[in-house]
Amino acid sequence: MDTKNIQIAYIGGGSRGWAWGLMSDLAGQDILEGTVRLYDIDRDAAYANEIIGDKVQYAEGAKSAWHYKAVDSLAEALTGADFVVLSILPGTFDEMESDVHTPEKYGIYQSVGDTAGPGGLVRALRTIPMYVEIANAIKEFSPEAWVINYTNPMTLCVQTLYEVFPQIKAFGCCHEVFSTQELLISALEELRGITDVKRSDINVNVQGINHFTWLSDAWYKNINLIDVYREFCDKYYETGYIKDESNHWMNSSFACAQRVKFDLFKRYGSIAAAGDRHLAEFMPGKMYLADPDTVHEWMFGLTTVEWRKDDLKKRLEKSKKLISGEEKFEIKKTGEEGVHMMQAICGERTLVSNVNLPNIGQAPDLPMGAVVETNAVFRHNTVTPLCAGKMSNEIGAMVSRHVKNHQTILKAALTKNKDLAFTAFINDPLVTCSYKDAKVLFDEMLQNTKKYLPGWEI
Amino acid sequence: MDTKNIQIAYIGGGSRGWAWGLMSDLAGQDILEGTVRLYDIDRDAAYANEIIGDKVQYAEGAKSAWHYKAVDSLAEALTGADFVVLSILPGTFDEMESDVHTPEKYGIYQSVGDTAGPGGLVRALRTIPMYVEIANAIKEFSPEAWVINYTNPMTLCVQTLYEVFPQIKAFGCCHEVFSTQELLISALEELRGITDVKRSDINVNVQGINHFTWLSDAWYKNINLIDVYREFCDKYYETGYIKDESNHWMNSSFACAQRVKFDLFKRYGSIAAAGDRHLAEFMPGKMYLADPDTVHEWMFGLTTVEWRKDDLKKRLEKSKKLISGEEKFEIKKTGEEGVHMMQAICGERTLVSNVNLPNIGQAPDLPMGAVVETNAVFRHNTVTPLCAGKMSNEIGAMVSRHVKNHQTILKAALTKNKDLAFTAFINDPLVTCSYKDAKVLFDEMLQNTKKYLPGWEI
Amino acid sequence: MDTKNIQIAYIGGGSRGWAWGLMSDLAGQDILEGTVRLYDIDRDAAYANEIIGDKVQYAEGAKSAWHYKAVDSLAEALTGADFVVLSILPGTFDEMESDVHTPEKYGIYQSVGDTAGPGGLVRALRTIPMYVEIANAIKEFSPEAWVINYTNPMTLCVQTLYEVFPQIKAFGCCHEVFSTQELLISALEELRGITDVKRSDINVNVQGINHFTWLSDAWYKNINLIDVYREFCDKYYETGYIKDESNHWMNSSFACAQRVKFDLFKRYGSIAAAGDRHLAEFMPGKMYLADPDTVHEWMFGLTTVEWRKDDLKKRLEKSKKLISGEEKFEIKKTGEEGVHMMQAICGERTLVSNVNLPNIGQAPDLPMGAVVETNAVFRHNTVTPLCAGKMSNEIGAMVSRHVKNHQTILKAALTKNKDLAFTAFINDPLVTCSYKDAKVLFDEMLQNTKKYLPGWEI
Amino acid sequence: MDTKNIQIAYIGGGSRGWAWGLMSDLAGQDILEGTVRLYDIDRDAAYANEIIGDKVQYAEGAKSAWHYKAVDSLAEALTGADFVVLSILPGTFDEMESDVHTPEKYGIYQSVGDTAGPGGLVRALRTIPMYVEIANAIKEFSPEAWVINYTNPMTLCVQTLYEVFPQIKAFGCCHEVFSTQELLISALEELRGITDVKRSDINVNVQGINHFTWLSDAWYKNINLIDVYREFCDKYYETGYIKDESNHWMNSSFACAQRVKFDLFKRYGSIAAAGDRHLAEFMPGKMYLADPDTVHEWMFGLTTVEWRKDDLKKRLEKSKKLISGEEKFEIKKTGEEGVHMMQAICGERTLVSNVNLPNIGQAPDLPMGAVVETNAVFRHNTVTPLCAGKMSNEIGAMVSRHVKNHQTILKAALTKNKDLAFTAFINDPLVTCSYKDAKVLFDEMLQNTKKYLPGWEI
Repeated sequence: MDTKNIQIAYIGGGSRGWAWGLMSDLAGQDILEGTVRLYDIDRDAAYANEIIGDKVQYAEGAKSAWHYKAVDSLAEALTGADFVVLSILPGTFDEMESDVHTPEKYGIYQSVGDTAGPGGLVRALRTIPMYVEIANAIKEFSPEAWVINYTNPMTLCVQTLYEVFPQIKAFGCCHEVFSTQELLISALEELRGITDVKRSDINVNVQGINHFTWLSDAWYKNINLIDVYREFCDKYYETGYIKDESNHWMNSSFACAQRVKFDLFKRYGSIAAAGDRHLAEFMPGKMYLADPDTVHEWMFGLTTVEWRKDDLKKRLEKSKKLISGEEKFEIKKTGEEGVHMMQAICGERTLVSNVNLPNIGQAPDLPMGAVVETNAVFRHNTVTPLCAGKMSNEIGAMVSRHVKNHQTILKAALTKNKDLAFTAFINDPLVTCSYKDAKVLFDEMLQNTKKYLPGWEI
Repeated sequence: MDTKNIQIAYIGGGSRGWAWGLMSDLAGQDILEGTVRLYDIDRDAAYANEIIGDKVQYAEGAKSAWHYKAVDSLAEALTGADFVVLSILPGTFDEMESDVHTPEKYGIYQSVGDTAGPGGLVRALRTIPMYVEIANAIKEFSPEAWVINYTNPMTLCVQTLYEVFPQIKAFGCCHEVFSTQELLISALEELRGITDVKRSDINVNVQGINHFTWLSDAWYKNINLIDVYREFCDKYYETGYIKDESNHWMNSSFACAQRVKFDLFKRYGSIAAAGDRHLAEFMPGKMYLADPDTVHEWMFGLTTVEWRKDDLKKRLEKSKKLISGEEKFEIKKTGEEGVHMMQAICGERTLVSNVNLPNIGQAPDLPMGAVVETNAVFRHNTVTPLCAGKMSNEIGAMVSRHVKNHQTILKAALTKNKDLAFTAFINDPLVTCSYKDAKVLFDEMLQNTKKYLPGWEI
Repeated sequence: MDTKNIQIAYIGGGSRGWAWGLMSDLAGQDILEGTVRLYDIDRDAAYANEIIGDKVQYAEGAKSAWHYKAVDSLAEALTGADFVVLSILPGTFDEMESDVHTPEKYGIYQSVGDTAGPGGLVRALRTIPMYVEIANAIKEFSPEAWVINYTNPMTLCVQTLYEVFPQIKAFGCCHEVFSTQELLISALEELRGITDVKRSDINVNVQGINHFTWLSDAWYKNINLIDVYREFCDKYYETGYIKDESNHWMNSSFACAQRVKFDLFKRYGSIAAAGDRHLAEFMPGKMYLADPDTVHEWMFGLTTVEWRKDDLKKRLEKSKKLISGEEKFEIKKTGEEGVHMMQAICGERTLVSNVNLPNIGQAPDLPMGAVVETNAVFRHNTVTPLCAGKMSNEIGAMVSRHVKNHQTILKAALTKNKDLAFTAFINDPLVTCSYKDAKVLFDEMLQNTKKYLPGWEI
Repeated sequence: MDTKNIQIAYIGGGSRGWAWGLMSDLAGQDILEGTVRLYDIDRDAAYANEIIGDKVQYAEGAKSAWHYKAVDSLAEALTGADFVVLSILPGTFDEMESDVHTPEKYGIYQSVGDTAGPGGLVRALRTIPMYVEIANAIKEFSPEAWVINYTNPMTLCVQTLYEVFPQIKAFGCCHEVFSTQELLISALEELRGITDVKRSDINVNVQGINHFTWLSDAWYKNINLIDVYREFCDKYYETGYIKDESNHWMNSSFACAQRVKFDLFKRYGSIAAAGDRHLAEFMPGKMYLADPDTVHEWMFGLTTVEWRKDDLKKRLEKSKKLISGEEKFEIKKTGEEGVHMMQAICGERTLVSNVNLPNIGQAPDLPMGAVVETNAVFRHNTVTPLCAGKMSNEIGAMVSRHVKNHQTILKAALTKNKDLAFTAFINDPLVTCSYKDAKVLFDEMLQNTKKYLPGWEI
C-alpha cells in the first residue's frame, strides 16, 4: 500500500456523525494520505459529505490532505480500495422505533435495542441480508482490502461477512472498552492520586463479545487495577459514580452512573466493560430492566428513538451549515482507534487494541469461528488476536448463551426461517413474557420490519 | 460375584420408604439372593428395618430370600460388599425447611428445593462433606463394589464420589425419565389408539443433567414419538393433562398437569423429561415460579416441608405396624431399575437405562468429567454410557449454566470457601433478588445449616 | 418394517464370497424373511447369484425362505429397501495389483493394501467417487433405509456416505475384532482352563478406527482379560501363537502368528484388535514391513494379488457348480453380525457389537464427525454408539495421524485435487522413500487407476 | 520495578557462554541497570563470572553499568529478584555423551540429543527433578519474579515450572526461529533484490513446539514470503543453500545446508523453523537420520559430545584470560531477545516475539496447558500469547505426537515411574529398534544417568 495514496471505501458514507469523525481523525494525522469514496443508499447525503470532506484539509489543525468522492455503486466504491469502512443504519429510525418500543407492551424494556434483546435480534434479521450483499461485493471487487465494521449488531455483522466470504480480512471496532479504561483512570486518580495516565497505559485483558465484554485483568504498571476497582465499587455502589455533572445520567440518554457495572463486578468478580445501557440488555429481563422504576434505581437512561429522531434533525441542520460554510469543520480527536489501526496495517506502528474477530483460539471456552471481542495486535498487513484465556464459569455461561443465540439467529436469517428465528427470540433473557405473548410480539415486530426481509414468508 | 450370595450395603438403611421399596424389588425377583447390611446414623431405624426386612421373604409373592442385618459402622457395612446403595437424608427436615422456605421472604419460590435453586445449592453444601466421608470409606473398605446413589442433589452426590475416589464404580439412578416415558405411552394410547405398550419399548435418547433431562429422540417401533408428543402438547397445552383424577395436582404435592413440560417443548423442541416441579426450578425465577399464583396457573404444587414432616409421621406409624405384624409387608414393583441393574452387572441380562455418570463423551457439549444423565448399557461387570450427542444450542446453554454452577459449588464445598459458594448462589437463575438481599439470604440459610458445615467460618 | 417381508438391496450382489455368506446367514435364522435384490455392475454375476440364492431355502439347515432377484439399476435395487448392503470391489484385481505391488519398487511392502499405506490411499481415491454415486442414489431412492457397509477402505466408505447424505442411517461392519475376542478365548482356555466360552461373553471396550482398533478393557465375567493376555503375550512373544496348524501363517496369505499383536501390546498396553497384516500397515514403514525378511520374522504373510486372482478363479468355478447343482449350497454360520444387527433394528433383540460410525462423542479424543470404530447398541430402529473413552496418549497419537490423513484424502477425492492427495500420500507412515521417489510412485499409481478417477487431471 | 535498579537472578550463572552473552546484551543497552546475582552449583565458575562481569561496564561500547555478585544459595539468588534467568547444564557432558552416543549401538543416530529422541527423553528425566527444585524455590523466594528459561529440553523445563507452581510468570526463549527469519531475508535478497531488511520486519506466524516450530505465514510488507520461499526451495533443494562458506556444514557441528528444511516444506507446505539438526530429530528415525551416510546426503552435521568437551576446554581457557585481563571482554549483540523482553516487561517498549508458554488457546489443536511455541506480545507486566491458529492436519499430527510423549515423560519423571518412562521412550519416532533392544538400551541409558535420578528404582 502506498501510504500517501490510500484508498478508503466508506459504505454508509452519507452519515452525519461517524463520517465526520473519520474525516477529523484522518486529517489530524500525517502518516497516511489519500482518497475516501463515499457510498450511501442516500446519494444526496454522500454528495453532501463529499463537499464537507473536501474542505477538511483547510481546517485548523489539519495535517494531511484527503480527497472525498461520492460514488454511485458498491462496485465503484470498492474497486481498488485498501480499506473498507462499514457504518450503516440498517433500515430507518421507524424500524428502530419498533425494535425498541414494541416490546414495552409486554413489559420488556430495552435501553438501546441494537445488539441483544428482542430489538437487537430483529435488527439482526434486517441487517444480515444487507451484509450478505456487502460481503459478496467485497469478495468480487476488493477481496484483498481490510474491512473495518462499525455497524451494530457488531457481532452478527462481522459474523455474516466471514460466513459469506471466509477469506475476508474484516474486523469490528467498538469504543465501549475505552470508556471503561477511562473509568479505571478516574479510579486511579481518585483513590491513588495518580494523574495524567493515558488510556494506552491501562493494560487490560478483554474477554467476551461486543457490548458484553469483561476485563479479567487490568494493570497500570505494577498496580493491579482489579483491586483499585474493588475499592471504587464499594465507595460508589449505592450512590453511583458521576464524573461530569454536565453529562449526568438523568439528563442524557447515553450516560449512566455505572451502578450496573458495579453490581456486575460484585456478582462476578470481573469488570464488565461496556456502558450500563448495553450491559443491562444481556442480563435476565427482571434484573436491571424490569420496568422504568428499576432502571431509574440503577441510574441509567432508556434511549428513546424519539431522541434519536430529534438528534438527527440537529445533525441535518449542521450538515447544511458545514456545506454552506456557515459553520467551520472542527478537527478534534474522536478517541476511536480506526485510523491508528490503518496506520499499523500499513506498517507504520505496532498497536494493541480490542477488536471483534472470529475465534481462532483467543476465547477457548467459546465456539471456534464465533465472533468474539478480545485484544489483537496490529502489525504490517496482519491483525492477530491475543489469547484472552478462559472466562470464569459464571461469565462464560452467560456469554455462551448469547453466542449460541447469535448462531441461531444467523442461521435463521440466512435461511429465512421464521420458526428458527423465534427459537432464538424466545430464548433471549430479556424475553420474559409468556410463550403466547412472545409469539404475538415477534409477529408484530417482523411485520414492522418486513420491508427489509426479502423472501421471507411473513 | 456369587449371584446366590450377593452382599449389599445400604447406607441410609433406616429409611421408611426407599428401603422398603428395595426390599420389595429384591424379594420380587429370583435371580439374585443374599444379604443386605443396613447402616444408618439413626441406629434404631436401621434395626427396625432389619426386623421388617427379615419378614419380607415370607410375604405373598416373594420369590427369593434376603437377609437383613443392621450394622453399626460404615466399615462393617462396606467390607465385602458387592453393591453399595446410597440413600440418605442430608440433615433433617428442619434444614430442608430452611432450604425451601427461607428464600420466600425475598420472593423466591421453590417447588422442591433439593436440586437447583438456593435450596438445592445449600443442600449441596451440607451433603458434599457427608459424601466425602462415604467416598473415603468406600475407597478403604469396598473399592471394587458397585455403588448406586439415590440421594439428592444427585449430580453433586455422584460428582463428589468421583472427585474423592476417581476409580469408584458409582452411578446415580432416578425415575423421573420413566414418568416421561409413561406420559408418552399415554399419548400413544390417546392419539394413536395403541395400547399395552411397555415402558421398555419407549426408546428414548436422554440428554442433560438429573432433573433437567431432555429427550431429543423418542421412538415406539417406527413411530416417531416427537410428532405424537407435539400433537399431545397442542391438545393439552391450555388445560394441562391429568391422567388420574385421584392424583390431581391440586391435591398432591408431587403431581402436576404437565403444563411446564408442554411449554418447554414449545419453546425448545425437545421433551423435558422430569416432573414439572423439578423442571421449573432450573428456569429463570420469574418464569414458572414467580409467585404462588403463577405456580397455580402452571398447575403444579409447591411441596411444603410441612407436608413432608406429616408424611414422615405416617411412615413411622407404618414402621411400627410392620414390626409388630399389625400390618403385612406388601410386595409390589416400585418401577425402579436398581435391582435390574444389579442383575445386569452380575451378567444375568443386558439392560439399557438412563443413569448419572461422569461425562466421558456421552455429552460432547458439556465438560468432560461432569456428571450427566444419559442412557447407559449395563452388562457383566460394566456400565457404559451411550452417546447422547449434542443438545440444541438453546438447551445446551441452559444446561451448561447449571453444570458450571455445580462445579463452582463443589469446589466451594470442598475448600469451605464461603465467597465462592455465594458466587454460585447468586448465579442461580432462581436468585432474582438484589445482590444485597441475596447476601442476607445466603447468610441466613448457611446459619440454618451450620451444624452440617464443619470447618466453615460462618 | 414387516419382519416377514424384509426388503434388502445388495449392492455388489454378484460377489462370489460375501454374497453367499449373507445367503447362508439369512437362511440360518427364522426371525426375518423377505427378498434380496442383487445389483452388480457385472450383471451376469448378479443373475448367477439369483439362481444360487433361490435354491438356498431348500438347503439343509435352512430355517427361512428368502427370495433373490437380480436387478439392473441402483434405483430398482434401492426403492423400497429396508436394508442396503454395500459390498463391492472398487475396480478390478488389476488396480489392486498396482496398489499392492507398485510401491515395492521403492522398498515399500504392504500386507493387504486396502486400508492404509500407499495402496489403501489410492484405493480410497478410486472408491470415493463410487460411494458418492451410491450415497446420492440412497438419498433419492431409499433415504430411510438402514445401510450396512462391508467394502474397504471401511472408514472412508462410511465417511463418504455421511459426507454426501448426512441424514443417512449407515454403519460399517468388520469382523476383525471378533478374531481378537476368539484369541482371548484361547488364552482363557490355555491359561485358566476355562472352556466353552462364547464370544458374546468376551466383553470388550473397542477404540480406534477400522483395522487399527484397540481393546482398552476386556472382561470375562469378573476376570480381567488384560492380565490374562499379558501372560499369554509373555508366553508366545518369541514363538508366536499358532492355534491351528492347518492354518499356519507360512501356508496362508491371511493367517498370522499374532507376533505383531503381541509386540504392540508390549509397547502400548492395549490389545490391538485386528489381524497382524492389517495392524502392520498402520505403523511406521520400517517397523514390521521393512522387507520380506522382517515380515517373515514377525510371522505373517504378504497377501499377493496373484493369490487373490487364483482364488477368484476357484470361486468362479464354484459358482458354476452351484448353479448347475453339481455342488450343494452349504449353510454354515459366517460369524458375521450383519443379520443379527438387522434383527435388532427390527426390534427383535438388543445387541451390542463393534461398528463404524461418525464420532458423536464415542471417541472424545478424535475429531467429531470422523468415522471411528467402537461398540454400539442396536435396538428397535436405533443404533447408538457406546462411549469408548479416551485412548492412551500414545495410541491416540497414532490413530489421530491416520484419521487426519483420511480427512485429507477424502477432501482430495471430492475436489479431485492431486496435490492434496499427494500430501496425504507422503504423510502415510509406510511411505518411507524419498520425496522424489514418492512423487514418481504416486504418479505411476494414479496412472494405473486412472480409469476410475473421472474428471481428474492426471 | 525500578528500571535503574533491576535485580536479576541467574541460575547457572557460572556458564562460559550464555552468561557472557547476557553480560554483553545488558551492557549494550541503556534503558535498564542493576545487579545480576550469579548462582551455580559450580561455585568457582560463578565467582569467576563475578569478576568478569564487573569489568564489562568498562568495555568499549558499554552503555550501562551492571553489578555482578556470585551467591551461594538459590534463596540468596532469588530473594528480591525482578527477573530469574535459568540456563543450566543438566548433569555433565558425560551424561550427554551417553544420551547422544549410546543409542548408536542400535542404529539410532541423533544430531543434538537434547530435546527429542532417546537422548532428549533421558535428558528430560534428569532435568525435571532439578526444575522441580528450582520451581519450589521460586515459589518460596520470588513468586512475583518473571522467569526466563534457556535450558533444554525447553518444553519440559517450562512445563515442569508450571506443573509445580502454576502461578509462576515463566516463559522460555529460543533463537531458532530467528535463524529462519534470517534465511527468509537471504531469499528476499537473492530472489527479489531487496536488501537491508531487518529481522523484525519479517512478520511470521509461529506454530508448534520448541525446535519443531513451523511458520504458516510469513510476510515482508505486502510480499508473501511463503511464495518466495517456495522458489528458494526449488532452486536449492538439491544442492543445499550455504550462505557463508566459513560456516560450511562439513566443517561445523552446528551448521547445515537447509536441505531438511527444504524437504519438510515440500512435504508439508509450512516453513519448518529450526536448525536442520533439531528438525531431523522429530521425524521418523529412518528419514533423515537413518545412518551417517544419509545424514551426509542431507548435508548436516552430527554434533559429537567430544566436540562439546573440546569446546568447553577452549572456553575455560578464555575465562582465565578474561579474569586475568589477558583478553578484553568484547561487547557485541548476541541477537537474543531476552534483554528486550525485560525492557518490555518494565514498560519501556512493546515487543512481539516467539516464546514458549502454556497453551491457553494460542494452539487450539494442542492440549490446553501444554507448553507450545508461538508469538507473544510483551508489554508492561504482561506477556500474552498471540493466537497462532490451527496447524495443518499433517503437521498437527506430528507435533501432537511429541506433545503427548512429553506429557507421558513428565508424569514418569514426577512419579519416578520407569515403566511409564519406557512407554514414552519406545513411542519416540527415532526409536526404530526392536522392543527388546529398546529395553536394553533404555536400561543402559538410565544407568548412565542414575546419579541424577534420586529415588528411582533402577
